[in-house]
Amino acid sequence: MAGSCLATASPLGASAVPPFTEKTIRDRGLPFPLVRRVFEEDRPLELYLGGELGPIDVAYHTYGQLDESGTNAILVCHAMTGDAYVARPTGASTDLPEGWWESIIGPGRPLDTNKYFVVCSNILGSCYGTTGPTSLNPRTGCPYGPEFPSITVRDMVRVQKALLDQLGVNRLALVIGGSLGGMQVLEWALLFPERVEAIAPIATVARHTDWAIALNEVARLAITSDPAFQAGAYREQPERGLALARMMAMLSYRHYESYNSNFDRKPDRREKTFADPFGSNRDFAVESYLRYQGRKLVNRFDANSYIAISRAMDAHDIARDRGTLAEVLASIRLETLCVGIDSDLLYPASDQRALADTIPGASYGEIRSIHGHDAFLIEFDQFQAILKPFLEELGS
Amino acid sequence: MAGSCLATASPLGASAVPPFTEKTIRDRGLPFPLVRRVFEEDRPLELYLGGELGPIDVAYHTYGQLDESGTNAILVCHAMTGDAYVARPTGASTDLPEGWWESIIGPGRPLDTNKYFVVCSNILGSCYGTTGPTSLNPRTGCPYGPEFPSITVRDMVRVQKALLDQLGVNRLALVIGGSLGGMQVLEWALLFPERVEAIAPIATVARHTDWAIALNEVARLAITSDPAFQAGAYREQPERGLALARMMAMLSYRHYESYNSNFDRKPDRREKTFADPFGSNRDFAVESYLRYQGRKLVNRFDANSYIAISRAMDAHDIARDRGTLAEVLASIRLETLCVGIDSDLLYPASDQRALADTIPGASYGEIRSIHGHDAFLIEFDQFQAILKPFLEELGS
Repeated sequence: MAGSCLATASPLGASAVPPFTEKTIRDRGLPFPLVRRVFEEDRPLELYLGGELGPIDVAYHTYGQLDESGTNAILVCHAMTGDAYVARPTGASTDLPEGWWESIIGPGRPLDTNKYFVVCSNILGSCYGTTGPTSLNPRTGCPYGPEFPSITVRDMVRVQKALLDQLGVNRLALVIGGSLGGMQVLEWALLFPERVEAIAPIATVARHTDWAIALNEVARLAITSDPAFQAGAYREQPERGLALARMMAMLSYRHYESYNSNFDRKPDRREKTFADPFGSNRDFAVESYLRYQGRKLVNRFDANSYIAISRAMDAHDIARDRGTLAEVLASIRLETLCVGIDSDLLYPASDQRALADTIPGASYGEIRSIHGHDAFLIEFDQFQAILKPFLEELGS
Repeated sequence: MAGSCLATASPLGASAVPPFTEKTIRDRGLPFPLVRRVFEEDRPLELYLGGELGPIDVAYHTYGQLDESGTNAILVCHAMTGDAYVARPTGASTDLPEGWWESIIGPGRPLDTNKYFVVCSNILGSCYGTTGPTSLNPRTGCPYGPEFPSITVRDMVRVQKALLDQLGVNRLALVIGGSLGGMQVLEWALLFPERVEAIAPIATVARHTDWAIALNEVARLAITSDPAFQAGAYREQPERGLALARMMAMLSYRHYESYNSNFDRKPDRREKTFADPFGSNRDFAVESYLRYQGRKLVNRFDANSYIAISRAMDAHDIARDRGTLAEVLASIRLETLCVGIDSDLLYPASDQRALADTIPGASYGEIRSIHGHDAFLIEFDQFQAILKPFLEELGS
């Protein structure tokens, strides 16, 4: 990769997003995030699994105004392939695409931007503007690629904390997130409890389960088995491998009823036209749908980032170096709302109920849906109905 | 593949199993199945989706004695990568490996070989001795490979029927099978109801669901994306692709509780040594387990067979050309026992209950297990307890 990988200066300057992110954000028509450098090359982040990383830039969006005491902030933590664009900027044109939690955030919504300063930052290791495998390694002048160090959810949270310090946030009224976002929420409760008033972990897990590790591992092997992956030193994405990984993951994010009621054995009529990396032998609409979803991820997410983040998820274990899982959960003394989804095949509702039963005083709400794990990005009416009373209680 | 594919004469003669099968059966230490030719090149099977296929050989095992009237037979239908070796031959040495339903079949067991003549034959398209992609195409002298025609569950059943005709079976006291085996059971009830007294479809489906199609499609794409697949004309198995397909399938055959209780985030200690097609970067025991399972399938199953059979499953729809699904199920007038598994993620118990509710007079039993779909190959005590009264009722 030598030579050609030496990046040209970005029009956005030293702290700007890498070229992959820039292209992706433009392709999707999203507004550019703000970017801040929170660790320097000579003042790096010490990583939980060893080694250090610097510089670290963080891409983020904010909504609403921080109050003078710096205590009305809410941190939203995104999921595996998510980004910081959680909602349109307040007052923005409706021509802009909706954010991934648009209906939760805004004036009068559960995360009320008339009251709260809402922050969402792209996680460490991702490819939407925060430092990750597509970022330049200052020691080589080339993207890290497969040389990006092993990261953990704890590292992600330390990066978020550094950003919030820069922004003047002294205390978080709430940390909220689903899936990998929920893992970050739990780590916030344990790493920086003095900075947090309440947490809302959603459809998540306190220690990544073998089931979820297995799903991640098969996805990783799909990526690394693609000859185009070239041990991570690819110039072009390993499109079949990454698409396959996504297709498998899409199954675990949904539920059989979701697929069956959507498709009902409809034949493929080639209604969607797209560059299918696998060729055209498709009998059923569901086959076409999956390939399309795979293709979409190839266009918007980096394979090395996918692997780095999935390994961080597998390493996630809030009990590590802290005691037994029950002790660690029992030590959480924050207002807590756990949310499960009755059809979640990835992080089942029974695990969310167990979380709520073990964290002292935690309350529990359940979304009823045929859509499985992804329901926290779909069933907004129910989600709002669960969130609103919890937030009203907090504010009172 | 020209030239080298011209098979040397097998020591077992014209109707013997192809070399792939021979090796696999020897590797696994199984007794050789019997083989019969049930269709000839000049008297071929007309395939449901068009075209014809001949000759067709069928590999099978039998247990017990056929009575003079030829009416005490039970047909056992096997699942996707299964074979005809359902149990040890009666009185065989216990040095032989157990069959896949060993504890169901034998003297005094639910399928009592003192009373019944039990037959299990390898399905059409498979690679355990029945004609499939590894068999020689008489027109080319080479294995069919990817040229093997599209087959359906209905074709599989017609081949079984031809075998039973040759064996002198006039009537089946029972047709029983799980998963793809259950699909064959349902087709028996509709293609040859006059030859069947009772059916027991287990953990199966009347029409392959979009969920199950999606799982199959991702597995197929994993196989066909392996460069070693060479559009099906491989000399050596596409080992990474086939292993990946198996690993994904293994997840759908089990359940999250099954994985989590088995592994409990144990690190990989390299307890299993095997030729890992993916290399050695494994953190958790579950990752090692999955790779080992993938490797095992590569050693024992043909990639083109996997694809041909998975497409037959996806095409499975008992209502096709027959009416509505409800009408077709309501037309079944056989003694019926449906069996579901409460944790089955592939063919959920709710679907088995719906089958039992729609087939007139059908009874329903449910296996309670953490092991998901595979429980019909694991929870033998419960399965026996469900089967026995049904079979006693039949025999009375």
